[in-house]
Amino acid sequence: SKYEYVKQYELDDTLLPGCWIVVRIDGKGFTKFCDVHGFEKPNDKRALDLMDACAAAVMTEFPEIRLAYGESDEYSFVLPRSTDMYGRRASKIVSLIVSCFTANYVARWPEHLPGTPLASTPMFDGRAVCYPLDSHLRDYLSWRQADTHVNNQYNTCFWALVKSGKTPTEAQATLKGTLSGFKNELLFREFGINYAHLPEQFKKGSVVVRQKAMVEVKQREDGSPVLRERALPAILHCDIIGDGFWQERPHLLAP
Amino acid sequence: SKYEYVKQYELDDTLLPGCWIVVRIDGKGFTKFCDVHGFEKPNDKRALDLMDACAAAVMTEFPEIRLAYGESDEYSFVLPRSTDMYGRRASKIVSLIVSCFTANYVARWPEHLPGTPLASTPMFDGRAVCYPLDSHLRDYLSWRQADTHVNNQYNTCFWALVKSGKTPTEAQATLKGTLSGFKNELLFREFGINYAHLPEQFKKGSVVVRQKAMVEVKQREDGSPVLRERALPAILHCDIIGDGFWQERPHLLAP
Amino acid sequence: SKYEYVKQYELDDTLLPGCWIVVRIDGKGFTKFCDVHGFEKPNDKRALDLMDACAAAVMTEFPEIRLAYGESDEYSFVLPRSTDMYGRRASKIVSLIVSCFTANYVARWPEHLPGTPLASTPMFDGRAVCYPLDSHLRDYLSWRQADTHVNNQYNTCFWALVKSGKTPTEAQATLKGTLSGFKNELLFREFGINYAHLPEQFKKGSVVVRQKAMVEVKQREDGSPVLRERALPAILHCDIIGDGFWQERPHLLAP
Amino acid sequence: SKYEYVKQYELDDTLLPGCWIVVRIDGKGFTKFCDVHGFEKPNDKRALDLMDACAAAVMTEFPEIRLAYGESDEYSFVLPRSTDMYGRRASKIVSLIVSCFTANYVARWPEHLPGTPLASTPMFDGRAVCYPLDSHLRDYLSWRQADTHVNNQYNTCFWALVKSGKTPTEAQATLKGTLSGFKNELLFREFGINYAHLPEQFKKGSVVVRQKAMVEVKQREDGSPVLRERALPAILHCDIIGDGFWQERPHLLAP
Ligand SMILES: Nc1nc2c(ncn2[C@H]2C[C@H](O)[C@@H](COP(=O)(O)OP(=O)(O)OP(=O)(O)O)O2)c(=O)[nH]1
Ligand SMILES: Nc1nc2c(ncn2[C@H]2C[C@H](O)[C@@H](COP(=O)(O)OP(=O)(O)OP(=O)(O)O)O2)c(=O)[nH]1
Ligand SMILES: Nc1nc2c(ncn2[C@H]2C[C@H](O)[C@@H](COP(=O)(O)OP(=O)(O)OP(=O)(O)O)O2)c(=O)[nH]1
Ligand SMILES: Nc1nc2c(ncn2[C@H]2C[C@H](O)[C@@H](COP(=O)(O)OP(=O)(O)OP(=O)(O)O)O2)c(=O)[nH]1
Ligand SMILES: O=P(O)(O)OP(=O)(O)OP(=O)(O)O
Ligand SMILES: O=P(O)(O)OP(=O)(O)OP(=O)(O)O
Ligand SMILES: O=P(O)(O)OP(=O)(O)OP(=O)(O)O
Ligand SMILES: O=P(O)(O)OP(=O)(O)OP(=O)(O)O
Ligand SMILES: [Mg+2]
Ligand SMILES: [Mg+2]
Ligand SMILES: [Mg+2]
Ligand SMILES: [Mg+2]
Ligand SMILES: [Mg+2]
Ligand SMILES: [Mg+2]
Ligand SMILES: [Mg+2]
Ligand SMILES: [Mg+2]
Ligand SMILES: [Mg+2]
Ligand SMILES: [Mg+2]
Ligand SMILES: [Mg+2]
Ligand SMILES: [Mg+2]
Repeated sequence: SKYEYVKQYELDDTLLPGCWIVVRIDGKGFTKFCDVHGFEKPNDKRALDLMDACAAAVMTEFPEIRLAYGESDEYSFVLPRSTDMYGRRASKIVSLIVSCFTANYVARWPEHLPGTPLASTPMFDGRAVCYPLDSHLRDYLSWRQADTHVNNQYNTCFWALVKSGKTPTEAQATLKGTLSGFKNELLFREFGINYAHLPEQFKKGSVVVRQKAMVEVKQREDGSPVLRERALPAILHCDIIGDGFWQERPHLLAP
Repeated sequence: SKYEYVKQYELDDTLLPGCWIVVRIDGKGFTKFCDVHGFEKPNDKRALDLMDACAAAVMTEFPEIRLAYGESDEYSFVLPRSTDMYGRRASKIVSLIVSCFTANYVARWPEHLPGTPLASTPMFDGRAVCYPLDSHLRDYLSWRQADTHVNNQYNTCFWALVKSGKTPTEAQATLKGTLSGFKNELLFREFGINYAHLPEQFKKGSVVVRQKAMVEVKQREDGSPVLRERALPAILHCDIIGDGFWQERPHLLAP
Repeated sequence: SKYEYVKQYELDDTLLPGCWIVVRIDGKGFTKFCDVHGFEKPNDKRALDLMDACAAAVMTEFPEIRLAYGESDEYSFVLPRSTDMYGRRASKIVSLIVSCFTANYVARWPEHLPGTPLASTPMFDGRAVCYPLDSHLRDYLSWRQADTHVNNQYNTCFWALVKSGKTPTEAQATLKGTLSGFKNELLFREFGINYAHLPEQFKKGSVVVRQKAMVEVKQREDGSPVLRERALPAILHCDIIGDGFWQERPHLLAP
Repeated sequence: SKYEYVKQYELDDTLLPGCWIVVRIDGKGFTKFCDVHGFEKPNDKRALDLMDACAAAVMTEFPEIRLAYGESDEYSFVLPRSTDMYGRRASKIVSLIVSCFTANYVARWPEHLPGTPLASTPMFDGRAVCYPLDSHLRDYLSWRQADTHVNNQYNTCFWALVKSGKTPTEAQATLKGTLSGFKNELLFREFGINYAHLPEQFKKGSVVVRQKAMVEVKQREDGSPVLRERALPAILHCDIIGDGFWQERPHLLAP
């Protein structure tokens, strides 16, 4: 039709070939969203498990995703250098990952937060970032995991202080400029909390990798299961800053 | 931290100022999704109503959106030239609109398709396109609405033929290269269908505009409602190709 | 060859269709370049004429260019909304205009500055900017011409003061925060300069438009010239902020 | 001024950090330009020397450039991963390299082609391409040098045939689909040309690297020169596809 020329206004947004692609999504206004739904502070295991389940679903949907890392209201998905997913078109990749994550978040909400009806619309923004070198990708993931640690330690102290009766302003003042060691001691001394004993999910965030597992693919006539090995998303809460994680899984950084 | 440098790899994706921004989202693999959920062919009013409800929710969430137009598994959202929504960052705008739409699609599904559980994950891709002139925007919307008409007429014939016993290949052959008039006649002659009498929603798609309405904002002590005028998303199924629609709503094309 | 894959790393840089394209070039380090070559301060007519001649040559080379505006060490070239010059590829358009301008600048230098050998390499940077509306294009050109006026008035005062014996610091202090009227009076009172009588080229910059002219295309056997009407670049020094210029040349803003 | 808002329409065009940046320039319409100026076919040493001299001048002007490779009417300039030249703004980098090259081409023309006045404007287009890995950069340069060889061998045969009396169409037909070995034999058998003995500049193109050299920086009172070691652009005609070149110059691929 004579209107079709408008299609030409769609500009190309191909991401540079040969780079790692990271898609990071982040909850919109989750400070309020968490409040509205009465999430436990600073970490609500139900909410984090829901995030992890959604990330695993995204990885099942998009087999090109190599691994994912999540914390708080955000998740990062890593596509390999060689991916040709949607011709590396940024808006296709970002929008579909965001959409898949969001759909799962709403669909799986009742299972993870039974008794808490959704009172507002959960939404996630998304962006794609390219990293040329393996070291850049490692540093990106280290950036997020270091952030998890710093935030979690601060928030654990902050909410312990507030729950013990301090005002938010007082709690903030107590923590301002303090070092990591001081915070650990504060937790132990004042609240009997050994930071090292907190759940790894809170301290390290969540890593989703594909792991070999036996999966029932069908049943024989006698009802016995037929098992096949499949690479399924598995959720870990481990260090990804050091070399160990990567040395054990060399395929993760393969081109 | 020493990892923070990776943040600099996020490149700017600002959309050109002064242009109309159209965000079009489209269901991923809805041919199959519609099949799996037994949508009526070619149009399932329940599914279209769900799409319309989601679009209205998106417009409620993002007051910057001027109007929206939807058909089939797609919706286009129009942001005005002057918008500074998220600094006109493409990935922010696209991902949040997609996410909001998707969240609503899942959340409102049971209400619109009671008795049909979601059997797979509905997902939408999204893209942003800039249009410099009002005439471009008008042509864009005309392109989509003309597409609605052509597709709907074809599909109505196609499924009538198939439901009457033809194979898909035969139906296709019957319609190949035929003109609009022929199809209308075919529908009437063979199936007693007067195309003009089909629902406007199928023939014209859906337009969402904000319309003044009296809304209950609170109740008085005696229980009587306090009403205020609010501009609420309203769903129309009217022509937007001609000038009439625009002349009646001059604010739509205001800068 | 097996190396050819590297070609795919060239990303698309198409400029949005339907917009005015402005390519602005600007001399690199011309503060020093003008000094080194002993340009008259604040305006050296020879240098400005050279700039104008180069701009005319660029317009002859690229017939798609609608008009150009120059001042100081910069020139802006305007391509119409409808141009498909090099498929609207930004780097093609910018690099070729810059290259054409630079080549002419060096080639025509001896003609405009006889007796002054080129002592360093003149270079120009370039960029492409898109403007959706006619009013944006008008405002862009007004921005540059208003800048010409403000700079020229300031510089005229500044150099008059310095030539009369003030130090640059004193001259700057004298002018700091003063209004246009004060500067005009200063020029008149102290130096007998009537600003209104300065050359239009200095006050208004240079506008290059195509004007109909009779051109000798060949000679008859008897030696008499055969003339044909051609649209040739002509250099004007007139106001382009007001409506007059545009009303007299409606073709300039034609799509 | 009220016009300044138009500055905001300049969009960011930063090149991805951490990548090699290659700027390739290429003569516009040099098929005709070479013809017009009577360049020797297929290679005119004067023209190639001029290209090489311009590339060396560009490298002197922009110390960030790591190395350059040229052939025919093109040159590629390599900026290191870590460069922050003009904040990695694509149009700044491309336009200035193109401008510097062009200015030198015109200025140095008389020295390299004495007696041949410039009869038209030499112009170069330019583009920037990012390469994430060292291997990509190596492959890029190999791509260009392999191209040099293939083109040169073909052109040498083609022009030998044409000079010997064949029409261009006949020459083309003779060479169509032939392998490298056949062409070498043809040259030797028919024209007594040993391809291996042709100048390296024709067969390998030109590589510009910085090499330590003693440079006279000033003179002592007695007129004797004061020498200092400087890294100056040097032009080589050697293989850059194999590893040797790179192993001898490890600094070239340093980050
Ligand atoms: N109480 C509670 N809050 C959480 C939990 N996980 C995340 N949050 C909250 C803490 C932060 O306020 C917020 C995440 O920070 P963001 O920087 O993403 O801010 P927010 O989402 O509010 O704004 P944004 O739209 O992303 O700019 O989510 C949780 O498990 N429990
Ligand atoms: N039965 C039925 N199908 C519908 C209805 N609305 C949309 N569809 C189907 C018809 C088309 O096959 C499909 C939309 O066409 P698309 O071009 O978007 O294709 P699809 O979503 O399969 O692939 P895509 O991922 O968008 O490339 O959705 C409906 O109301 N009823
Ligand atoms: N003496 C003299 N100087 C001029 C003339 N035209 C331009 N200039 C000088 C005045 C300014 O210092 C300079 C133009 O200002 P710019 O902002 O373009 O600065 P410049 O080129 O030095 O640096 P850039 O590389 O553009 O950032 O050129 C002239 O006719 N005579
Ligand atoms: N006779 C002669 N021709 C040369 C020499 N060096 C380059 N050329 C010519 C051969 C080719 O026709 C042309 C370079 O090929 P291109 O693909 O760059 O084509 P051209 O510049 O004509 O078009 P373009 O504007 O780059 O698309 O320059 C030389 O030394 N002698
Ligand atoms: O949202 P923040 O503050 O964590 O930081 P950001 O996500 O990098 O900022 P933005 O969402 O504006 O890109
Ligand atoms: O998806 P189509 O075929 O309707 O057309 P498109 O959406 O323009 O194509 P793409 O989704 O690949 O951008
Ligand atoms: O160069 P300036 O300072 O006149 O201003 P600009 O040209 O907009 O700045 P830049 O050259 O850095 O884009
Ligand atoms: O110009 P060509 O044909 O050598 O190939 P190219 O330079 O990649 O093509 P373009 O100049 O159109 O980018
Ligand atoms: Mg954010
Ligand atoms: Mg958030
Ligand atoms: Mg967050
Ligand atoms: Mg599509
Ligand atoms: Mg679809
Ligand atoms: Mg569709
Ligand atoms: Mg500048
Ligand atoms: Mg300058
Ligand atoms: Mg300037
Ligand atoms: Mg080319
Ligand atoms: Mg060329
Ligand atoms: Mg070439």
